[in-house]
Amino acid sequence: MAGHEEYVAGLLSSARRAATSLAMASTAKKDAALLEAADGFLAQADRLKAANEEDVKAAQSAGLSKAMVDRLRLTDKRISDMAEGLRVVAQLRDPVGELIGGWVRPNGLRIEKVRVPLGVILMIYEARPNVTADAAALCLKSGNAVILRGGKEALRSNLAIHAVFADALAAVGLDRGCAQMVETPDRAVVDILLRAEGKIDLVIPRGGEGLIRAVVEKSRVPVIKHYKGVCHTFVDRTADLDMAEKVCINAKVQRPAVCNAMETLLVHSAGAQEFLPRIAAGLKEAGCDLRGCEKSRQIVSDMTPATEEDWFEEYNDLILAVRVVDSLDEAIEHIAKYGSQHSDAIITADLSSAREFADRVDSSAVFINTSTRFNDGAQFGMGAEIGISTDKLHARGPMALPELTSYKFVVYGEGQVRS
Amino acid sequence: MAGHEEYVAGLLSSARRAATSLAMASTAKKDAALLEAADGFLAQADRLKAANEEDVKAAQSAGLSKAMVDRLRLTDKRISDMAEGLRVVAQLRDPVGELIGGWVRPNGLRIEKVRVPLGVILMIYEARPNVTADAAALCLKSGNAVILRGGKEALRSNLAIHAVFADALAAVGLDRGCAQMVETPDRAVVDILLRAEGKIDLVIPRGGEGLIRAVVEKSRVPVIKHYKGVCHTFVDRTADLDMAEKVCINAKVQRPAVCNAMETLLVHSAGAQEFLPRIAAGLKEAGCDLRGCEKSRQIVSDMTPATEEDWFEEYNDLILAVRVVDSLDEAIEHIAKYGSQHSDAIITADLSSAREFADRVDSSAVFINTSTRFNDGAQFGMGAEIGISTDKLHARGPMALPELTSYKFVVYGEGQVRS
Repeated sequence: MAGHEEYVAGLLSSARRAATSLAMASTAKKDAALLEAADGFLAQADRLKAANEEDVKAAQSAGLSKAMVDRLRLTDKRISDMAEGLRVVAQLRDPVGELIGGWVRPNGLRIEKVRVPLGVILMIYEARPNVTADAAALCLKSGNAVILRGGKEALRSNLAIHAVFADALAAVGLDRGCAQMVETPDRAVVDILLRAEGKIDLVIPRGGEGLIRAVVEKSRVPVIKHYKGVCHTFVDRTADLDMAEKVCINAKVQRPAVCNAMETLLVHSAGAQEFLPRIAAGLKEAGCDLRGCEKSRQIVSDMTPATEEDWFEEYNDLILAVRVVDSLDEAIEHIAKYGSQHSDAIITADLSSAREFADRVDSSAVFINTSTRFNDGAQFGMGAEIGISTDKLHARGPMALPELTSYKFVVYGEGQVRS
Repeated sequence: MAGHEEYVAGLLSSARRAATSLAMASTAKKDAALLEAADGFLAQADRLKAANEEDVKAAQSAGLSKAMVDRLRLTDKRISDMAEGLRVVAQLRDPVGELIGGWVRPNGLRIEKVRVPLGVILMIYEARPNVTADAAALCLKSGNAVILRGGKEALRSNLAIHAVFADALAAVGLDRGCAQMVETPDRAVVDILLRAEGKIDLVIPRGGEGLIRAVVEKSRVPVIKHYKGVCHTFVDRTADLDMAEKVCINAKVQRPAVCNAMETLLVHSAGAQEFLPRIAAGLKEAGCDLRGCEKSRQIVSDMTPATEEDWFEEYNDLILAVRVVDSLDEAIEHIAKYGSQHSDAIITADLSSAREFADRVDSSAVFINTSTRFNDGAQFGMGAEIGISTDKLHARGPMALPELTSYKFVVYGEGQVRS
């Protein structure tokens, strides 16, 4: 344990030193490091793949699921996507130094509100090694030092990716401490990091609900996160049913394993007789298993009966819970009770229903006549995403560069004093 | 303990119910409640003073300091100030529903970023009973339900103030649960509240460092706070010494007991010989005790020698630590090491010194040629203040209405799906 404490103290002091100089670094230098790292990923693709191959073999021997092994795997395509991701971040506007606001007081004081980095960010994530590059890039561009802690099954891949990134930092004259990787899979190290209140400014965990709950439980450092995405689509009585079918199938089927995929379909009873058979047929054709409430099973009889637990469930799979409701109110109440405040949609032609749903559904993003799958930084036009927050403090919804910053006030006077 | 758990569960469920309806309440209704409460304070001034008199007597019997008893006391002037404070909040723009941003994506999706309340706020504070009215007003206007927990020595006063406020809520048809007061001084109740993660959205503690550290230590709910204000003024080599003298005396003397008062004066050695005798004379005339470093005592010999602890000290009193430094760098390093990231000032005529100080001093507000005493919501033109944050997450510096809100995304489509 003493060894771990010392190791973490080293990480933290390097991170703080790096953060102090990085806060003052020019955009040109940060972008040069990103482009250098992008080139490095391509030039060293073979080395990355060799390290990854060892992780993949170990994962296969350990009997990890095919889906898990697939997430872990680095291919040439994924390596070039990673490089391209860094080039995109290099092109994004630097948030540091942005004047968010400014005004002059009656006494002549000029007040400026200026964007500044947060400081030191701890990123905790699971199997996908590309998160190493993405998170390092977003933290660098926003002027924050980052400590990266990926899944132990991806450790060799992450270390190889990190080495390229750190070399790129050094090549342009930035401190290697700007992006450090925790080199041991030992969880005790994470526990010590999570107690480093005041030395780490923010923790962003990404992964399954279990990981995130464990981080929140242990952390003395502020955490921004979402636990899960139990996303709803409500098909209102006035919905255009063609649109509803198209949007619902997209929200459920296009990529079912992600947090913004639909997990529960709510259908207004006025349209259920017509809509449910259509959508059930379309979803079954796509391989989707349906779990229906009693009313919905009176219309489409071959659905599995839904239990109370189904309404809370994030399936992350081709499974959908279906419920018939008698009103907009009932839909909103269902979402309030069972939802995760992540992404919820209404399909409606009625203006007042749309307004009421948007106002009363307390989620990070509410969608009117479109798919919950759009709750994403790139889809929102933010250029990137380090995660999605269902918290209300600091940042909500997709988080990109500005969400990785704070601000300070700079006040210019000519000798004014307070009376 | 079971009784406390049940009591807190009642507070929390009332607060959540109230928050849900308050989030939808009109500005007109919220403002009407504020004006009603302002009238109520004036109409019931005698009742408030009678309740306060009991607190004051108890405090005097308990041997509380004169300063503490003074903070506790409600006078006609303070009651009318409290009423006026509510009228000011009623006039402030309602932050709820403000469109913070909006844009259209290439696929036609219209994205709106809309300000929404945080939900339920727990306010923990010490002796001043006027905080009860101020905090209730700011939370109400920003659409948040608040649970108020003031100092036990002010409990009767707080309950009387709260009763007027709750009656005003009811008079305009708002839920009394919008502002609840913890009716028992038992700390076990606070401990239970601080563990209500997910049921309380934000804790704002206001008071001494001990109170705030205890809250942060125990809280599972996010906390925004400042621990203390160890504020510096650096008199640069190019400073206009008349301005420097005027600003330093204001920063130290105008109200020494508050968090944005200067605690340490840093003087560039190039001007120390001329400036130190002047400022020492001025401060001594104002009754201020000086604690100097060795170099400063070679210039002004009758200062108490400063110890290492003095540089960390928030005196909150007419005491000032004085240090001579040889460069801007040394001043910035002193502030980084000993400061509290609250409010720090430079007096300089040099543009590059001003810029460098503003960029590198990592405080919630940095002042150029003016007094640290201006770090205040009203002085910044925010119209009010619920506290000052030295945190970097969510809000930094003075916090007023917008800082008590979050946002959500509302996305309008016409059937778009993700490919």
